[in-house]
Amino acid sequence: MNEDPASTQRRPGRVQAPQGAVLIAASLPAPLHSALAARYPIVDLADAALAERVRELDAATRGEVRAIVSIGSVAIPAAVIDALPALGLVCCMGSGYEGVDVAAARARGVAIAHSAGANAAAVAEVAMGLLIATVRGFGVEADRLARGEWRGNAHARRPPRPGLRGLRLGIYGLGAIGMEIARRAQAFDMAIGYHNRRARTDVAFRHFASLAALAEWCDALMISVRASPATRHAVDASILAALGVDGHVVNIARGSVIDEAALVDALQRGVIAGAGLDVFEHEPDVPAALVADPRVVALPHIGGASREAQAAMQAMTLANLDAFFRGQALPSAVPA
Amino acid sequence: MNEDPASTQRRPGRVQAPQGAVLIAASLPAPLHSALAARYPIVDLADAALAERVRELDAATRGEVRAIVSIGSVAIPAAVIDALPALGLVCCMGSGYEGVDVAAARARGVAIAHSAGANAAAVAEVAMGLLIATVRGFGVEADRLARGEWRGNAHARRPPRPGLRGLRLGIYGLGAIGMEIARRAQAFDMAIGYHNRRARTDVAFRHFASLAALAEWCDALMISVRASPATRHAVDASILAALGVDGHVVNIARGSVIDEAALVDALQRGVIAGAGLDVFEHEPDVPAALVADPRVVALPHIGGASREAQAAMQAMTLANLDAFFRGQALPSAVPA
Repeated sequence: MNEDPASTQRRPGRVQAPQGAVLIAASLPAPLHSALAARYPIVDLADAALAERVRELDAATRGEVRAIVSIGSVAIPAAVIDALPALGLVCCMGSGYEGVDVAAARARGVAIAHSAGANAAAVAEVAMGLLIATVRGFGVEADRLARGEWRGNAHARRPPRPGLRGLRLGIYGLGAIGMEIARRAQAFDMAIGYHNRRARTDVAFRHFASLAALAEWCDALMISVRASPATRHAVDASILAALGVDGHVVNIARGSVIDEAALVDALQRGVIAGAGLDVFEHEPDVPAALVADPRVVALPHIGGASREAQAAMQAMTLANLDAFFRGQALPSAVPA
Repeated sequence: MNEDPASTQRRPGRVQAPQGAVLIAASLPAPLHSALAARYPIVDLADAALAERVRELDAATRGEVRAIVSIGSVAIPAAVIDALPALGLVCCMGSGYEGVDVAAARARGVAIAHSAGANAAAVAEVAMGLLIATVRGFGVEADRLARGEWRGNAHARRPPRPGLRGLRLGIYGLGAIGMEIARRAQAFDMAIGYHNRRARTDVAFRHFASLAALAEWCDALMISVRASPATRHAVDASILAALGVDGHVVNIARGSVIDEAALVDALQRGVIAGAGLDVFEHEPDVPAALVADPRVVALPHIGGASREAQAAMQAMTLANLDAFFRGQALPSAVPA
């Protein structure tokens, strides 16, 4: 614990709250970290082996932790939740909260909050950038240019690829981010279908009852579904085969949704045409075969990394925490 | 000449036209080349030193050429036009016709045709892809990933960049392609301004009376203006300086519009933040400094290379030629 909570609660700007500390479980942007430290007593275990480190805390410190601030990809297992008797909130910066043991939290009455929608536009921008880049072959073409293989005029050199206009975009997971992607894809005159468990009543896009049916129909599959045990490896060898030899897959959600080994294999055997990937199964490790393949446009999880999205996510994280410590309704709670 | 025109005009599918040949001045897509050869006697001088090769043709062949099929970047100087006494049409596949000596053609009563709008959607897709890629730093980020420099979680590692949402896009040349770009940029919630010589009466976007004023105002400058002597090097060191240290420039029009040496210098000195380039001043040669710079996303002039755009451009080229040989109005003439 950085500070003595009894003394810090009198500082101006502090939230006047019952005593209690905030455990930081992941590396956070510096402005958010500073804002948290100015408001709350902090227990900083960022990027540590969380369960072990929590057990090493003395009982008094453990008893003071009322909230955890984390990001979706960091594991918050039952062992951590159970070791913190005063815990009331796990607050993830960003849209995802797949690392949180939701059942364990629910069983303990611990609320979960995230930053719903705050990064949707930023992620949708990267999604569209990856979609254009893979469909129009930016990787292959930039590679040709870099190798000095560009010769002759533009029209003579190779068969043209399909453009986005009229292409069928299959959105797997039409939530806040998927809707932002769909709105942008409409401006490109793409045909849009989607797979959610239940059809949305507020959109005219074609609903597919299964991911397999969506993959059969579409030319490009956009993964914007929430990571969960239910969606783990949902995009497997059979879905990639359904997508087909001219098909492209874009993933801006979480790496766990694709069976990454199956994707590498599908690319190597020409089962699909290309991929745009902002997320990977074992970040920050990326299979060398994906990085080396010019048909793959690979980015290091930058979807939500715009200035505007970062500010919105940080503000929402603070708003969730402040509401919690004031005993108010959370502005962005994960629905039970 | 590949064939004897007298014998070939009786073939089914041929346009029944007065005797006359088509000179092919640029490498064309195979389907268009085949379609032309099936319809018309061909004089194929593709990718040759045109003026010299035309002078080497015998007088009879020169006298038979009534139309030239070319692409915008190939020079059709007065010497070529003047060497072909029966010439009545120069038909460029694609939107550009900057290689044609328009004044010389007009003086001889030679019509100019192009494929207006046929590639606008395809080029706008690449324009948006390059805009997203340069603003969101795809090149820099992909580079980090390829070098194995991605460590730690997504949020901890570097300052966020601006996203497209709310960013000011300055469109230099709001024609058919510029309008398709604007429509897509609107779906990204960008603020849109433009510079044309005259303000359009059919759009609500903010008009800037000068390119300098547009560059001062905008965060990202999109070049979609027609290449001409008047626009050569319009984007020079002063315009890049006005764009500023956080500014990005995207060029999907023609390389001649940017002073390429000034662009290289501006990037090296940090005058602007990045560039997305599908066209270059001396294609297919690209300055090594641009290819090597991760802040530059460089492509080998693929804007119009979608299957749909190629089909539309080829169809429009044939339609222009057929109308000409039938004595009908050209479907896509360059206005006098």
